[in-house]
Amino acid sequence: MTEEKTAEYFASQQKEISVSQFFEKNKHLLGFDNPTKALLMVVKEAVDNSLDACEEAGIIPDIEVVVKNVGDDNYKVSVKDNGPGIVKTQIPKIFGKLLYGSKFHRLKQSRGQQGIGISAAVLFCQLMTGKPTKIWSKTGKNKKTHYFELLINSRDNEPEIIKQEDLDSPLIKEHGTKIEMLIIGRYRRKRGIDDYLKQTSISNPFAKIKYRGPDGKTIIFPRTVNKLPKAAKEIKPHPYGVEFGVLDRMLKETKAKSLVSFLTREFSSIGTKSAGDICKIAGIKKSVLPNSLKRNEIKKLLAAMQKVKVQRPPIDCISPIGESEFKKSLEKEYPEAEFVTTVTREPAVYRGTPFQIEVGIVYGVGEDKPVDVLRFANRVPLLYQAGAGAIVEAIKETDWKRYGLKQSLGNLPSGPVIIAVHMASSWVPFISESKEAIAPYPNIVKEIKLALQDAGRKLSSFLSGKRRAGQQKRRLQIFE
Amino acid sequence: MTEEKTAEYFASQQKEISVSQFFEKNKHLLGFDNPTKALLMVVKEAVDNSLDACEEAGIIPDIEVVVKNVGDDNYKVSVKDNGPGIVKTQIPKIFGKLLYGSKFHRLKQSRGQQGIGISAAVLFCQLMTGKPTKIWSKTGKNKKTHYFELLINSRDNEPEIIKQEDLDSPLIKEHGTKIEMLIIGRYRRKRGIDDYLKQTSISNPFAKIKYRGPDGKTIIFPRTVNKLPKAAKEIKPHPYGVEFGVLDRMLKETKAKSLVSFLTREFSSIGTKSAGDICKIAGIKKSVLPNSLKRNEIKKLLAAMQKVKVQRPPIDCISPIGESEFKKSLEKEYPEAEFVTTVTREPAVYRGTPFQIEVGIVYGVGEDKPVDVLRFANRVPLLYQAGAGAIVEAIKETDWKRYGLKQSLGNLPSGPVIIAVHMASSWVPFISESKEAIAPYPNIVKEIKLALQDAGRKLSSFLSGKRRAGQQKRRLQIFE
Repeated sequence: MTEEKTAEYFASQQKEISVSQFFEKNKHLLGFDNPTKALLMVVKEAVDNSLDACEEAGIIPDIEVVVKNVGDDNYKVSVKDNGPGIVKTQIPKIFGKLLYGSKFHRLKQSRGQQGIGISAAVLFCQLMTGKPTKIWSKTGKNKKTHYFELLINSRDNEPEIIKQEDLDSPLIKEHGTKIEMLIIGRYRRKRGIDDYLKQTSISNPFAKIKYRGPDGKTIIFPRTVNKLPKAAKEIKPHPYGVEFGVLDRMLKETKAKSLVSFLTREFSSIGTKSAGDICKIAGIKKSVLPNSLKRNEIKKLLAAMQKVKVQRPPIDCISPIGESEFKKSLEKEYPEAEFVTTVTREPAVYRGTPFQIEVGIVYGVGEDKPVDVLRFANRVPLLYQAGAGAIVEAIKETDWKRYGLKQSLGNLPSGPVIIAVHMASSWVPFISESKEAIAPYPNIVKEIKLALQDAGRKLSSFLSGKRRAGQQKRRLQIFE
Repeated sequence: MTEEKTAEYFASQQKEISVSQFFEKNKHLLGFDNPTKALLMVVKEAVDNSLDACEEAGIIPDIEVVVKNVGDDNYKVSVKDNGPGIVKTQIPKIFGKLLYGSKFHRLKQSRGQQGIGISAAVLFCQLMTGKPTKIWSKTGKNKKTHYFELLINSRDNEPEIIKQEDLDSPLIKEHGTKIEMLIIGRYRRKRGIDDYLKQTSISNPFAKIKYRGPDGKTIIFPRTVNKLPKAAKEIKPHPYGVEFGVLDRMLKETKAKSLVSFLTREFSSIGTKSAGDICKIAGIKKSVLPNSLKRNEIKKLLAAMQKVKVQRPPIDCISPIGESEFKKSLEKEYPEAEFVTTVTREPAVYRGTPFQIEVGIVYGVGEDKPVDVLRFANRVPLLYQAGAGAIVEAIKETDWKRYGLKQSLGNLPSGPVIIAVHMASSWVPFISESKEAIAPYPNIVKEIKLALQDAGRKLSSFLSGKRRAGQQKRRLQIFE
């Protein structure tokens, strides 16, 4: 065959692809695939980062968002926070390198998970406009403000510093970070920045957000509570959620000198007794060196870990909105509502990962149409893929006629109603990398349904009260 | 505030995440999120790789797939091909490093795009079972067989060689590669390996596939054509599909000494005349050094490139199945069919990327129910997310009553019918990284609809013929 190519030829063609190049070419995976969504994503990634930074540092967030049209479809976006600031050497990496961050390896609720979002926004802006992202950050009152202009060298997935200065600037008072980006986008109110910020304010009642949109008007979303929620704590993995490869690596990396101490030290919910039971069922001596285990022994150990009854994982890695806080938030954003109720379920577990579901129902808003659904994951509003995922599935599978709403089988119920659902977890299983919907794992759907039923019952008694009042009124009118 | 944490504390927590760790934790993004799908994915990635290798090397593929249950839910999967083989130094990287390959940077139709699939399968198997993947490869008759046992060091995204030997082995006759993996999975026929291989045989009529499943039975999918399709050629980017960031980089990296030669050398469809026109509209001298352009000039250049009329991109980067080959394939796999028709459209373009749509309709298979839809992208069957994407959208939006099938508005039509649709392109825009559905870009949906209408008309005349024959027969019976 004359056309036949050799293995040597192919070898010369193979090369490494950086993760920046990968996402540059696959930007739809991160949600940057159309101008409307891209503009929203840039704001969202910056605000999510600011909220995470403030909350982790124990600072009540004050956030300012400005979106300005600067000609044609060019928008300048800036987001400023009063967070802890970022030390100088870290700034280029945090904004100029994909897959870099502090949240990936730990088990604890946060908005960001992967270390992709904000650097992907930087990458996307540079791809569209060629402009670097500007960053100002200050870590304390008497410190300088570090100013950077950054691009990403996508071939190496490394930051490229275009400009750096240390300023004496009044821009940031005590501490905080401001980021400014130029992007090509399209602005709309619905399912855009306005909706995102409104919903963010609902799920973060302790945050104050000031927003000036492209129309030049300023909207303030005030805080309704004046303290931060109890901070989420980092937890160790739970024995029911571990996989062979992870267990294998943990055994190799542990500093524990015996299997029994490995089990109690590296996992949550395993005490000395359950550790002993696990060793016994696995048929392995308690005292063996963890990294001496053979493949077959690891298999037995893993199986034994699933068999022994242990407590569910600790739940202080989750930080729910809170029943009364959630209610206040909804009342603030929907002052016209006749009735608001909220439910925060007890924490539950899917695949060894703790999570907690909260539901709010708002009645008397808008018209008699399919209900509006607000979806939140770790306090972040989900605005796209509105028809997909665990939350919508659970709402559709709930029998709403029982609670006084119209519903045709398998569809969303109808009424002047908003249903808001929040899932808080140390690891939210999203359907896609763009984090638009929660994977419908059975345990998650079940918990959401139970929460909806609780809230539904409260709605139902409100509606019967309303009906009775109406009947009484009519009866009174008859006798008048 | 006592709880307040400093920027310095956060700096100590930040670290790099490797792409292997990323996908290890997000395995659902690649489709490895349930045992049934995982087993299929491992087979699919290996077979897709084998077909790509053979086709590129100009070798008619002979592929052997063996899936064997080896106790509990453990499956041993092996895939062997007669491809060109892989040179020794490349084997660890190809199988043991994510984002490594030859197909990412070029514009040309192939099954794989990203350099993720097969190494993700290796990673997933090791995560589930701890077992290394075994690879045998031989690049020529008188050469040794290179044998490797590989794991992936996920922290660094680098291969870890467990064992390596050069063998005199009769396993591979002339040249080729065999891969063997142990995975935890679940086997099913429907939407599993059997369906995948059957459909692969339809879209690759030049391939012979021998398959022994967990039940021990061997199925042979013979080839229906004895030569490879015309090889797809690599093309240069088209001016209508380029973005600022990409253009910027191309200007910096080019060896061309003038803007006009940059345009003609680095892009498809730009001749000297259109290059001159572009420079003129942009208001930039033809002779300037490409890497001397300022940001504003690049913007003007990009705008001018969109304005000048140029030819569509060359289409020899696409390799369709072919109308008669597609028909033969369908007839072979559905021998009970009463009628088979196929349509291959002329190539078209979305966002500067060439693509081509092919449609097959099979009548007289199965019962009167919603039609079965077979979806293919670059000859690869898409088995999951059956309800999503451009193909299903186009089928639902087509008026099938016109062509003699029942259909309720906006749904799939009904009948004893299979509708098969293939999109071939130098870059298929998938909805997600697991490559399960094609993004419904308007141009793509439109082309699919046109192809469906063509095929629908042929179906319609077959059905009227059938009806007339039936009426005639009844009439004859009356007169008998």
